[in-house]
Amino acid sequence: MNEKLTCETRGQGLYEVTGAVEAAVRRAGVSDGLCTVFIQHTSASLTIQENADPSARRDLEAWLKRLVPEKDALYTHTAEGPDDMPSHIKAALTSTTLSIPVVDGKLALGTWQGIFVWEHRHAAMRRTIVVHVGP
Amino acid sequence: MNEKLTCETRGQGLYEVTGAVEAAVRRAGVSDGLCTVFIQHTSASLTIQENADPSARRDLEAWLKRLVPEKDALYTHTAEGPDDMPSHIKAALTSTTLSIPVVDGKLALGTWQGIFVWEHRHAAMRRTIVVHVGP
Amino acid sequence: MNEKLTCETRGQGLYEVTGAVEAAVRRAGVSDGLCTVFIQHTSASLTIQENADPSARRDLEAWLKRLVPEKDALYTHTAEGPDDMPSHIKAALTSTTLSIPVVDGKLALGTWQGIFVWEHRHAAMRRTIVVHVGP
Repeated sequence: MNEKLTCETRGQGLYEVTGAVEAAVRRAGVSDGLCTVFIQHTSASLTIQENADPSARRDLEAWLKRLVPEKDALYTHTAEGPDDMPSHIKAALTSTTLSIPVVDGKLALGTWQGIFVWEHRHAAMRRTIVVHVGP
Repeated sequence: MNEKLTCETRGQGLYEVTGAVEAAVRRAGVSDGLCTVFIQHTSASLTIQENADPSARRDLEAWLKRLVPEKDALYTHTAEGPDDMPSHIKAALTSTTLSIPVVDGKLALGTWQGIFVWEHRHAAMRRTIVVHVGP
Repeated sequence: MNEKLTCETRGQGLYEVTGAVEAAVRRAGVSDGLCTVFIQHTSASLTIQENADPSARRDLEAWLKRLVPEKDALYTHTAEGPDDMPSHIKAALTSTTLSIPVVDGKLALGTWQGIFVWEHRHAAMRRTIVVHVGP
């Protein structure tokens, strides 16, 4: 089963999609299997991170922003703006795809794990993720 | 088929779990398929790395520790100690999930590849990984 | 279905394999399912990146080379040459495995996404990737 989901982002940061992915798993009706989440973009990515304390996500975002700054004489791919090339690098360092086992009809996430879309562009974007649920 | 495995860690570094994952694949009895390994934590991660020379893993650990040091004025998420926020960042830069084809009942790893749990905390931890084997 | 593909590399950089993977998906004859690409090496990796403007890939390569330089007093794993340890680190920071949903018999890649083998060694290499297509 494949299903497309949309995530509307409003600037850089992490947007939780755990509930939307869990709902797709329920609709698939698979008891034991594998759920794969895939993002169809190269300037946004996916990550599984702590879903409890928002300070962990803020620090993560700030750390990656410092590692991959917008101003860098190295960049030649600059036609789409100063946040374009950093966003490709950030996507390459994180994940485009995540696979999570489904056990008893539920995602086998750890207690503190959530699934997040990681937006690397400043502008509001409509991001598409494809959720596959298989045996 | 889903199976939970436990990995007891004793401080930061890489712990090989290739044998335990291979045993789960044998128990699943799948001849051609896909094995997915998922770690249920956000302060430890997974990686596939060279299983021959331990110096490669030591250098990898040392390099990542230098990239993501414990002392950093940027961190605000510090309640659980100085190794907490670095561990989330290290997990985000490496892998929470790995999928490996199963060919003729065996993991299709390259000659020098091993599967490792990468512990990012100092304390001894009991880490849970979920192994899914599907068609 | 599992199929082995070969990618001949000629030095560091990104080599597109989207067409070869798509052909394997067609041969598998799966209409809706999941395609997993796995690279059997620890000194080369995989990434999904922009397939349109080559300057994005050049900048990506240059940025990672600067983050993980060949000369580094930290390295002890140096027997295979100065590009050996950096190649393991680069592989750990990117991906060994990628899973992409198959929808209507085709990879559900976004408009600008391509699948690339990322070579981290200088020498010409024959890299093996395993493509799994499942339900």
